[in-house]
Amino acid sequence: MNLPSLEHSVAELLPSGTRKLLVAVSGGVDSVVLLHLLKTISSELEFTIHVAHLDHRLRPESSSDADFVRQLCRQWDLPCSIESCDIRQLAARQKISLEMAGRQARREFLWTLAQKIGAELIALAHHGDDQVETFMLRLLRGSGQSGLSAMRVHQGCWWRPLLNLRRQDIVKYASQHNLKWVEDESNRDSMFLRNRLRSEIIPQFYEINPRFGGGIERLVQQFQVDEDYWQREVTAIFDSLVVSREDGLRLSRPKLLATHPALRVRLLRAALLQVRGDLQKIESVHLLAVDDLLSASRSQGELNLPECWVARRYESLWIRRGSPALPEPFDLTLPDEGEVKLPDGRIIRASTQVEQEGESAMVVEFSLAALSQPLRVRNWRPGDRFEPLGMSGHKRLKRFFSDNRVEREVRLRTPLLVSGETILWVGGMRRSRHAVVRCDAGEIIRIELF
Amino acid sequence: MNLPSLEHSVAELLPSGTRKLLVAVSGGVDSVVLLHLLKTISSELEFTIHVAHLDHRLRPESSSDADFVRQLCRQWDLPCSIESCDIRQLAARQKISLEMAGRQARREFLWTLAQKIGAELIALAHHGDDQVETFMLRLLRGSGQSGLSAMRVHQGCWWRPLLNLRRQDIVKYASQHNLKWVEDESNRDSMFLRNRLRSEIIPQFYEINPRFGGGIERLVQQFQVDEDYWQREVTAIFDSLVVSREDGLRLSRPKLLATHPALRVRLLRAALLQVRGDLQKIESVHLLAVDDLLSASRSQGELNLPECWVARRYESLWIRRGSPALPEPFDLTLPDEGEVKLPDGRIIRASTQVEQEGESAMVVEFSLAALSQPLRVRNWRPGDRFEPLGMSGHKRLKRFFSDNRVEREVRLRTPLLVSGETILWVGGMRRSRHAVVRCDAGEIIRIELF
Repeated sequence: MNLPSLEHSVAELLPSGTRKLLVAVSGGVDSVVLLHLLKTISSELEFTIHVAHLDHRLRPESSSDADFVRQLCRQWDLPCSIESCDIRQLAARQKISLEMAGRQARREFLWTLAQKIGAELIALAHHGDDQVETFMLRLLRGSGQSGLSAMRVHQGCWWRPLLNLRRQDIVKYASQHNLKWVEDESNRDSMFLRNRLRSEIIPQFYEINPRFGGGIERLVQQFQVDEDYWQREVTAIFDSLVVSREDGLRLSRPKLLATHPALRVRLLRAALLQVRGDLQKIESVHLLAVDDLLSASRSQGELNLPECWVARRYESLWIRRGSPALPEPFDLTLPDEGEVKLPDGRIIRASTQVEQEGESAMVVEFSLAALSQPLRVRNWRPGDRFEPLGMSGHKRLKRFFSDNRVEREVRLRTPLLVSGETILWVGGMRRSRHAVVRCDAGEIIRIELF
Repeated sequence: MNLPSLEHSVAELLPSGTRKLLVAVSGGVDSVVLLHLLKTISSELEFTIHVAHLDHRLRPESSSDADFVRQLCRQWDLPCSIESCDIRQLAARQKISLEMAGRQARREFLWTLAQKIGAELIALAHHGDDQVETFMLRLLRGSGQSGLSAMRVHQGCWWRPLLNLRRQDIVKYASQHNLKWVEDESNRDSMFLRNRLRSEIIPQFYEINPRFGGGIERLVQQFQVDEDYWQREVTAIFDSLVVSREDGLRLSRPKLLATHPALRVRLLRAALLQVRGDLQKIESVHLLAVDDLLSASRSQGELNLPECWVARRYESLWIRRGSPALPEPFDLTLPDEGEVKLPDGRIIRASTQVEQEGESAMVVEFSLAALSQPLRVRNWRPGDRFEPLGMSGHKRLKRFFSDNRVEREVRLRTPLLVSGETILWVGGMRRSRHAVVRCDAGEIIRIELF
């Protein structure tokens, strides 16, 4: 291959086997140069090009940008898809910034189009100065290292072959090849934070250190390498932390605490990602809060994060999209012979008989004569106390639950068998010392939970 | 303990068992507040205070700052050491910035004084806004993650109990307690980059995001946790990479290449630190260069880094303070009977006899009649060729060395036995096919290297 240097550097970054490229062209100098570069190398590298343009309708002249792109593609004989989207409306509907809405609409448009036309790769015109701006923007907004690792040349189907070039290289190429482009007026609008960074703040840094941009690019590269490292470590150990995936994700607290805090915060990120599907609106301060929940002395606690609910339940960390539905309170009368159905679907059955059959966690027997009727089955209430068999005195039920590490949600659906104000049985766990069946007890009432 | 919150937060950070504290006091509001806080908690926590002040002599009024500190200590009944140092002269002599020189002189003064008076800890008045400034300053100068992890509350004997406070908290405390202080005029001098950051650039960030500082502080904390992780990983595997410490540090290239690049760059940093004693002037670009040296296709190469020399020699990476001294070129006449001493101290001895005794790497025998006199022993020169025994034709000596993975420094001190222009023996390695001793050879010359 004998190509001039800029073409060569782009060609070198093209994954082999690429047959069809979707190129995002706004009509600005960056994307026009990108398109020209790709057109130049396309026949030698045997790929075809399809151009995509999304009209954001933010400015009156935006449709003329679309016309420019259409015209350029006709002139260069390239197929082209142009669509239009009301970004202002989208931003208002989703309550996000115009920048965010534009980015989201663009990505969706490009992604869908690439699928439709069978393009393996979507080429974007971001360059090194964009990289520096993105870094500073995220720094300003409080991103952690992962966010600061900014954009990569290759990121799934997205491809940014100009990322190692500077704006001035691109402008020079445009003038060498007599390219025409449209100036995006919104680039001058200092309402957009990125523009303010570009035109006002970053130049002050360059004034202090002319090599400022290179330093940021090296830092971003280091962060990307680090991110790759963390990703591997997380992948290697994540599954060993999972206790259950039945009702949300449950991770082992002791295993999490045994990992180094630097790794742990990445494991927590990965857990949130698995549960939520993405990490939008998750900031480092949220991860610190989860870490605090994990290491605090309180054995049960909850956090509401954006689109995510995190709880510590004794030795596990429980993550769900939303908080679990709490069971309905219940208070049911239990006949001497018959059954009641609990809100969670389990059944408590009572039967009377004269022979003892023996007790277990799920079955208890009482001397019928010692009980005052009617028997009731209800959920736990604050202030409840009971007198466990084998213990003198009474115990607060809250304390009993806590000593037995019963999780909040389980407490609320645990059936209590009561007679008047007396708790006879904490269903499935422990009976009280009331109405124990003696040898000569007479009639027995047998209660089963299943 | 029943202390107001600021005192309490400082007291909580004091390592238990501290008996004597050296407090660095410039006379500015930060250090006066620090001193007041420490004085307040000192009797309850049972430590004594010694004050240190270094007069930088940068401003005409600097000696009045020293007077202020002396006066304050008299008033508060605290022992105090005041010294003076010509920072401008130090900066000029060491060719470093005034800021750097000031920092260096301060640290040395404080460290020495702490040793002398037996203080376990040196308290510094850096606060959260200093932390943000330091971060931005290092970002601007192209630091990697390690540099960006900035200052810690505890760092060896250095202690920064105000690091989690903001400047406004400190000023508020000062006014609540009617403290007096001196304004450091140099804080307003925008010649100093830090002041320009503080007064011009950082306020623009706060204007955009009022929580900017908190984001930076969280990021610094994350970096510190990460640094601790990397430190442990490096410590765990460093020694397994060391091939030799005889003449500088030699690390195994294959083992380095087998580690993840994120870890590798930290291992290289650790290696430079071991050899140099510190990492001053080592930037991320230097580490990248070492990494390139390691992974490049050239099997031998060198890099001159600040106060450090790094070479790849086949499968090892060799790091020294400076490049190794190259051996003097030599060209010595070897008598038939007798010896010559090589520049590296080894000896080549010649003796004539009639019986063959056999050859080895260190001994060769030639048929005396087949040689033209005199024999010479000299070092390798570009263009040298020889005809190895057992091979037809000749071989360039450079190629021979390279095939045998002979390192550059070893090549230069390898003795060549020559007769006229003919290389008879690459000392210690291989003989040529000239003048091989046959059964009826007559007189033999035997050459030994030891």
